[in-house]
Amino acid sequence: PIDADRLWDSLASMAKIGATAKGGSCRLALSDEDKAGRDLFVSWCEAAGCAVTIDRIGNIFARRKGRDDSLAPVVMGSHLDTQPTGGRFDGVFGVLAALEVVRSLNDRGVETLHPVEVAVWTNEEGSRFSPPMMGSGVVTGIFTLEEILDKVAQDGARLGDELVRTGYAGEAPVDHPMHAYLEAHIEQGPVLEVEGKEIGVVTGAQGQRWYEVTVTGVEAHAGPTPMRLRRDALVAASAMVQAVQRVGLETAGDPCATVGILDVHPHSRNVIPGRVFFTVDLRHPNADTLADMDRRFRAAVAEIAEQQGVGAEIADFWHFPPTPFAQPLVDRVREAAGGFGFSHRDIVSGAGHDAVYVAGKVPTAMIFIPCEDGISHNEVENISPADGARGAAVLFETLVATAGR
Amino acid sequence: PIDADRLWDSLASMAKIGATAKGGSCRLALSDEDKAGRDLFVSWCEAAGCAVTIDRIGNIFARRKGRDDSLAPVVMGSHLDTQPTGGRFDGVFGVLAALEVVRSLNDRGVETLHPVEVAVWTNEEGSRFSPPMMGSGVVTGIFTLEEILDKVAQDGARLGDELVRTGYAGEAPVDHPMHAYLEAHIEQGPVLEVEGKEIGVVTGAQGQRWYEVTVTGVEAHAGPTPMRLRRDALVAASAMVQAVQRVGLETAGDPCATVGILDVHPHSRNVIPGRVFFTVDLRHPNADTLADMDRRFRAAVAEIAEQQGVGAEIADFWHFPPTPFAQPLVDRVREAAGGFGFSHRDIVSGAGHDAVYVAGKVPTAMIFIPCEDGISHNEVENISPADGARGAAVLFETLVATAGR
Ligand SMILES: NC(=O)NCCC(=O)O
Ligand SMILES: NC(=O)NCCC(=O)O
Repeated sequence: PIDADRLWDSLASMAKIGATAKGGSCRLALSDEDKAGRDLFVSWCEAAGCAVTIDRIGNIFARRKGRDDSLAPVVMGSHLDTQPTGGRFDGVFGVLAALEVVRSLNDRGVETLHPVEVAVWTNEEGSRFSPPMMGSGVVTGIFTLEEILDKVAQDGARLGDELVRTGYAGEAPVDHPMHAYLEAHIEQGPVLEVEGKEIGVVTGAQGQRWYEVTVTGVEAHAGPTPMRLRRDALVAASAMVQAVQRVGLETAGDPCATVGILDVHPHSRNVIPGRVFFTVDLRHPNADTLADMDRRFRAAVAEIAEQQGVGAEIADFWHFPPTPFAQPLVDRVREAAGGFGFSHRDIVSGAGHDAVYVAGKVPTAMIFIPCEDGISHNEVENISPADGARGAAVLFETLVATAGR
Repeated sequence: PIDADRLWDSLASMAKIGATAKGGSCRLALSDEDKAGRDLFVSWCEAAGCAVTIDRIGNIFARRKGRDDSLAPVVMGSHLDTQPTGGRFDGVFGVLAALEVVRSLNDRGVETLHPVEVAVWTNEEGSRFSPPMMGSGVVTGIFTLEEILDKVAQDGARLGDELVRTGYAGEAPVDHPMHAYLEAHIEQGPVLEVEGKEIGVVTGAQGQRWYEVTVTGVEAHAGPTPMRLRRDALVAASAMVQAVQRVGLETAGDPCATVGILDVHPHSRNVIPGRVFFTVDLRHPNADTLADMDRRFRAAVAEIAEQQGVGAEIADFWHFPPTPFAQPLVDRVREAAGGFGFSHRDIVSGAGHDAVYVAGKVPTAMIFIPCEDGISHNEVENISPADGARGAAVLFETLVATAGR
């Protein structure tokens, strides 16, 4: 029901903005490149006859009228921002598949009962500004608008100022009404590809706990300071990185445990590090198991700090519990995939998505498509045009069934 | 034979330049603060009647005429640059103790046979620009002038440009003649304090090998990427940091093994690190043992890389072998300390010093004084005024004995 070539061309055009040397994309949230990507998207929506609204956190909603336009819209969407060395499909696929659904509704002259919207959520990645999923988090009341406007990037910029600078500090209130929410996304993992499935019917997302750890030792000269007298913050932190890895390896089910950032102070070749900062990201589909991983992680950090004679502070940075999606909507995705004869399986999302926050407010479902070698958050991220077309087709069917005729 | 109060006042005045919040000093090589420190030193030397020369690598030589001014000078000196979170005495003590010797020679109207000079060597620390000991290394032919002028700092500045900008791109050739070289310095370790000795008679310096290691894994999403499929560059690098520590702990004698810098790429909370860069600093007083440490370090890195399925490249960055000082000059330092009745012991320097390079060219010796808790390369670095005065007195006696009357 959709135009596969048009979808692929749109993906290729968007990928030119912030294109990286190794074939990926770099459009960090509210950077010049993110602005250029948003501007292109808005121009496409206007050409498709949509009315575009920007809210106060910079989320974009492109609206196609419904037969009863007083009803709340069925919203499809995802994000256009990327990781520093991001791919061409993470988030972008969901946004442009949603746009393709709207374009196809237009081509076929389909009227829906509910209005239909395409949403672009601000700063899903949580890389330049952290935590992730800020735009959807503000709309669903997880974060206050004020706290998020005051977030400061790794590069020193304030989020509120970057919204104004890029022209995306909108006027619309942040309590956007929604009847239901649908998000198509690449899997970002290997399961569908390994099992040869064309569509992932996402039943929910695993829980996440993010932390910041600061290890404090004693700076001293790397030469005349005997090994036994050292309190080396990096030696301790590197044992903690190993312990985080063990928490991941020694947990049943589908655990994840990752240290993505680690900064050494004072950062000089011949100074024993006096302070190390690092981030930890723990995930599990089961709430009790995630709580157990949290306990083992904290115990390991405390034990290593004690052994090495250093201080260690753990700060909770961000978290959300395992989040199930709406059963009836999930069933509708499964039926749509089956209706087309696509091979499919139920799957739990390993990543957080805007859908996780939206699921707390309105019925929500997600559609996954496979990605090459299961690789994402990497410039080489890739999908096949056929997989993209299948995902957009399932989105089309689910949307029409949800918005009504 | 020296004025302890004047020495202490000079140390305090210099410490005001680039003073840090925690009571230390930050005068990174050829920064604005380093320039201000050099300018103050030059003004003091001129007030003491010295003729000041700057050579092409920015070394400063302040000359007091000898009875036979055609003889090569006996040079005393050290450095004024510091670590990012450096102390008030590392290097500075040796420079200002040497200046105090010259001032005292003036006060007492002592004429020496050889001219006497105070040297400030450019970039001893090797922190902003690396490797360390650049000024003395160029003068002694370890480095070419051209390669050093082209070194680029962590902040992107070129050394040659920073010399011009700060007004220290001198005209004098870099093959400065010297009859002998004497350097006073804080120990930067705990030995003298622990043993209650007032003076360290430095017999030489331990050897050093510095490396740069680059670990290459695969960037991937921290959520949907199963633990068993990861090739996490930071998990591998942290095992290598542990291995470096073991090389230090499991070596006899007085080994040192330190990772001072570690950088993670792409540096995002929810991306499995794809690349890690770190530096390694291995030291030992015995050449064979240092070679053995080198072998064990390389083997451990290769083994961990293999186990973790990542790439690892080790680049040799800098090294010097264990370096003995000149026996007759060392004996003279011991006699001077004994003559004053100061408690003393022979000691091997754990740090590299400009004296190490100079020792390859002319007879060289060093005098150590204790520092509080053995702590250096730290803002809290401290000495007692009495220890400072003792070190300057031994320098005075050794200088007069070497320069002749
Ligand atoms: N898809 C995605 O990268 N979301 C950000 C939150 C997460 O890391 O799971
Ligand atoms: N004293 C000093 O820090 N010298 C630099 C070379 C080294 O780290 O030993």
